[in-house]
Amino acid sequence: MSPKITTELLKQLRQVMKNPKFVQEPVQAYIVPSGDAHQSEYIAPCDCRRAFISGFDGSAGTAIVTEQHAAIWTDGRYFLQAAHQMDNNWTLMKMGLKDTPTQEDWLVSVLPEGSKVGVDPFIIPADQWKRMSKALRSAGHDLVPVKENLIDTIWTDCPQRPCKPLITLDLSYTGVSWRDKIVALRSKMAERKVMWFVVTALDEVAWLFNLRGSDVEYNPVFFAYAVIGMNTIRLFIDGDRMMDPPVREHLQLDSTLEPEFKIQVMPYGSILSELQAVGAGLSPKEKVWLSDKASYALTEAIPKAYRYLTPYTPICIAKAVKNAAETEGMRRAHIKDAVALCELFTWLEKEVPKGTVTEIIAADKAEEFRSQQKDFVELSFATISSTGPNGAIIHYKPVPETNRTLSVNEIYLLDSGAQYKDGTTDVTRTMHFGTPSAYEKECFTYVLKGHIAVSAAIFPNGTKGHLLDSFARSALWDCGLDYLHGTGHGVGSFLNVHEGPCGISYKTFADEPLEAGMIVSDEPGYYEDGSFGIRIENVVLVIPAETKYNFKNRGSLTFEPLTLVPIQTKMIDVNLLTEKECNWVNEYHQKCREVVGAELERQGRHEALRWLLRETEPLARVQ
Amino acid sequence: MSPKITTELLKQLRQVMKNPKFVQEPVQAYIVPSGDAHQSEYIAPCDCRRAFISGFDGSAGTAIVTEQHAAIWTDGRYFLQAAHQMDNNWTLMKMGLKDTPTQEDWLVSVLPEGSKVGVDPFIIPADQWKRMSKALRSAGHDLVPVKENLIDTIWTDCPQRPCKPLITLDLSYTGVSWRDKIVALRSKMAERKVMWFVVTALDEVAWLFNLRGSDVEYNPVFFAYAVIGMNTIRLFIDGDRMMDPPVREHLQLDSTLEPEFKIQVMPYGSILSELQAVGAGLSPKEKVWLSDKASYALTEAIPKAYRYLTPYTPICIAKAVKNAAETEGMRRAHIKDAVALCELFTWLEKEVPKGTVTEIIAADKAEEFRSQQKDFVELSFATISSTGPNGAIIHYKPVPETNRTLSVNEIYLLDSGAQYKDGTTDVTRTMHFGTPSAYEKECFTYVLKGHIAVSAAIFPNGTKGHLLDSFARSALWDCGLDYLHGTGHGVGSFLNVHEGPCGISYKTFADEPLEAGMIVSDEPGYYEDGSFGIRIENVVLVIPAETKYNFKNRGSLTFEPLTLVPIQTKMIDVNLLTEKECNWVNEYHQKCREVVGAELERQGRHEALRWLLRETEPLARVQ
Repeated sequence: MSPKITTELLKQLRQVMKNPKFVQEPVQAYIVPSGDAHQSEYIAPCDCRRAFISGFDGSAGTAIVTEQHAAIWTDGRYFLQAAHQMDNNWTLMKMGLKDTPTQEDWLVSVLPEGSKVGVDPFIIPADQWKRMSKALRSAGHDLVPVKENLIDTIWTDCPQRPCKPLITLDLSYTGVSWRDKIVALRSKMAERKVMWFVVTALDEVAWLFNLRGSDVEYNPVFFAYAVIGMNTIRLFIDGDRMMDPPVREHLQLDSTLEPEFKIQVMPYGSILSELQAVGAGLSPKEKVWLSDKASYALTEAIPKAYRYLTPYTPICIAKAVKNAAETEGMRRAHIKDAVALCELFTWLEKEVPKGTVTEIIAADKAEEFRSQQKDFVELSFATISSTGPNGAIIHYKPVPETNRTLSVNEIYLLDSGAQYKDGTTDVTRTMHFGTPSAYEKECFTYVLKGHIAVSAAIFPNGTKGHLLDSFARSALWDCGLDYLHGTGHGVGSFLNVHEGPCGISYKTFADEPLEAGMIVSDEPGYYEDGSFGIRIENVVLVIPAETKYNFKNRGSLTFEPLTLVPIQTKMIDVNLLTEKECNWVNEYHQKCREVVGAELERQGRHEALRWLLRETEPLARVQ
Repeated sequence: MSPKITTELLKQLRQVMKNPKFVQEPVQAYIVPSGDAHQSEYIAPCDCRRAFISGFDGSAGTAIVTEQHAAIWTDGRYFLQAAHQMDNNWTLMKMGLKDTPTQEDWLVSVLPEGSKVGVDPFIIPADQWKRMSKALRSAGHDLVPVKENLIDTIWTDCPQRPCKPLITLDLSYTGVSWRDKIVALRSKMAERKVMWFVVTALDEVAWLFNLRGSDVEYNPVFFAYAVIGMNTIRLFIDGDRMMDPPVREHLQLDSTLEPEFKIQVMPYGSILSELQAVGAGLSPKEKVWLSDKASYALTEAIPKAYRYLTPYTPICIAKAVKNAAETEGMRRAHIKDAVALCELFTWLEKEVPKGTVTEIIAADKAEEFRSQQKDFVELSFATISSTGPNGAIIHYKPVPETNRTLSVNEIYLLDSGAQYKDGTTDVTRTMHFGTPSAYEKECFTYVLKGHIAVSAAIFPNGTKGHLLDSFARSALWDCGLDYLHGTGHGVGSFLNVHEGPCGISYKTFADEPLEAGMIVSDEPGYYEDGSFGIRIENVVLVIPAETKYNFKNRGSLTFEPLTLVPIQTKMIDVNLLTEKECNWVNEYHQKCREVVGAELERQGRHEALRWLLRETEPLARVQ
């Protein structure tokens, strides 16, 4: 990976930062956030402005360019990747390390007195605007909205915004019709006494209407907004796709409907003016509900006194709790995904010793096996196929310049997943195709102990995911080891592979309590820069737990692994496992055998079945 | 415990809430917070306004009285106690339960439109004012400062504010002189570019000047404020106590000093006007540092643009990290405390079977044994001496109406501690003087497993205490059990038994990372309403840990128990312990034997020594 040369681009950006054609007054700094106008984590090529200006294309990071400096803030997953992709014009700000300044503190330290800091008001979330604006103002500077995106003005070959056909999902996939979802949403609105709800997140629009798209790679969403009133539904979406008969039928656009279920379709670009009209027409006490992460531009469209902002929307919370149809779909998707990975690992075991399999070939092969499965749509994120030192780059994606050949001498880490019409998968396995060293096995076993500690944890109803994070680290901590990322994230149902409002992280964020039906990942790891990376990840479903007692009648929860792919026993130092942990591995493997074994049999994949049976032989603990 | 009859008092309060003599405009609600003007947790009798108006005298709780309602918010420790102490005029709001409204939400739900909510601006912390004021304003109400405290106007026999003599502490106790503490504080002020620092917390004033007092029971503090400039020191304190020659000498009040160390002594009541004068005389960029928990009145004295507010002051953080002299003092204090408890338990073992020992007698006896130890000053909090069902009242204090007799049929829980001139102690032991049931042993053992999980935890430098809380609960959670309080709090060095900025709690609060030298409690529990309470509490010191590896050179930490009192082995179901846990108990008891045994020997307390030796026999685990 050679860094992107950005000298000329930065010069151009610094020129437009002073050009009265684009800015009312010159701005001394310009912020380029990671997201799009919907605060998406994964974005369309036309929204990859931070990658365009800096070269760093990880999924999280904010660039700030001043007259003298250019800096990128990103988290532990991306420290190595960002350092590789950026040239010397850029300073890497490692978030989470003690000495790294916040963006605000850094700006205050480098800006001349009374500076203006510009940002696209459609890209910056309102909560971030508020925090940053306050900090800058208290230091004598001003955060100002710059209507025209300054990156777009210098990005001559910027791709078009995608506008691809939609997929409709029937009840067998969603469990609930879009009409019933609207009814439930309106009842939440009535509870909070709000008259309007603005849907800004792409996955929330998709979930609400039981539609999927492919405007953003890996995330089956489409560019749209929605504004739901107590008696109206407005959907802001572009293109011919609303002319598609199945879509029209699904949304009942041509039927005679009760007026409160009649969807008004409007152009995507009219959201701001429509919302301003809503804002102007409000009577006292008529509130408008928005996520506090909605863009500053849309939030400002509603006068302050009428805004009702929450960190998580009722759609976000409802979407996280999967119903029976969704849970069953997720189970099916994970069985198919396991079949594909059993095929892959069987194939790798034969091919790796020949020295012909590169990281890219392995990733492509994984996609090939997945695409043979029913209802496969696309991958759910860029496959992390990494061997040896590349494994230590936490969100590595192989490219020709870094592409390493798998060998019997190095650890191989594969973090991959897919979108199936019935569910989303995300699984990491760490394998050795030769003989792992004692140290590699030791580290792997600590990571496994952490994985099991979370997966087998029993905890009271109402517990927030962040309270489970330390369980995943305890075995590593005991030996002075750790990993610099969270332990788990919410997973959508044929939707985004990362979703709120729950997760398992040491970072104190306002997560919602875990509830039966929620689905999260469990993925501790250990990474040694320059030598190897280990991660063991399952997607797990929150389920009720049976306990001996029941304090205050609260009930307890635990996790059921949905991912059913063998964990390589060759990598385990059995003597480091407790009896309970050993039993967990054996029971897990027994379930892989039964469930995935039956499907391999059904699909006639006999070689992979033999591989599965061998890889799931019970561990024997030396007493 | 019979409830306080408050009908007449509430009638009087509701009258003054409308009386133009006391309020500019009638207030429809009046808030009575728990603290005093220093936001102290433990308060002087003259500040017990919430207890006066409601009857509930726990250490935490806020009362709100409206024209129609009266309600108290308190946490899980006090649910039972509050329910017992309050009459039917009051509604108990159980904080931490899902359906309990916040104070703001409740006010909004009960108040008529456009209400005024009054509060004493000296009692309400600025951060709480801000949150509450904002919430009320957005619902069309107003939070207003009421200068005269309305409780004081109806409290005819309100006691005088105490003003007791001071104790000076020399270097052998404090390790650092007050002058050096001022120098260190000024260097922190220079780092943050602030010109003034306002010391509002009583323990921070005491710590800064190496003085102690006895104005508040259990907390060796005195009523005072301090304002530290880069070249000035102002101490706001009343009474003859500054005439005391040792105090004058300690503070060098009569010496010729460099002007920047000359202490100006001013009347306690002049803090507001002096601070207003400071506020009025500030030049641009001259900031004043205050805790964000300082009172609204003092915070308002500084114009908003000049305020520098932080959740923890530099004094709070420096005070939490004990130096060698303080650590050694704490060790000594805990050995003396253990001697007293060995004597107590020896005595109880003989006396309880006779049926003559009540909770109050046991508490008094504990105090008697403690008072025999060198440098004993007073207790560090009201002794929780509770047997049987009283043990389930988490912060129970025996009074004649509830006083239960200890017996060989019930669990006895003793949570007690003392102030010695060299340190502060806080220890809980749960004992059975007959034969515990299998269920009692089972619950005790889960609590013990939680205690050990925290005490033996190894974690990276920089870890916040709240990340350890779940370790204490895991064994209980596995069986569907839990406890409704945090796991640990910071402990002062001959100062408040509860202090910031660190702790171990499931509540997400902005705790500072744990550092070597910090001292916290480790006190998981289990409580069964109406039958028994179990808690095992040690005070533990954060120390560096030796680990096999050292990820990113961060270094690791662990805990060393300072409390050295046997944990009753009779209560342990050894079969529920792992080998590691069993070894922990045996090593802990071995240390109690050696260290406390030697001191019992030295003090000639042979019967207690024999008790100690018997109680610290190693556990034998059945294989």
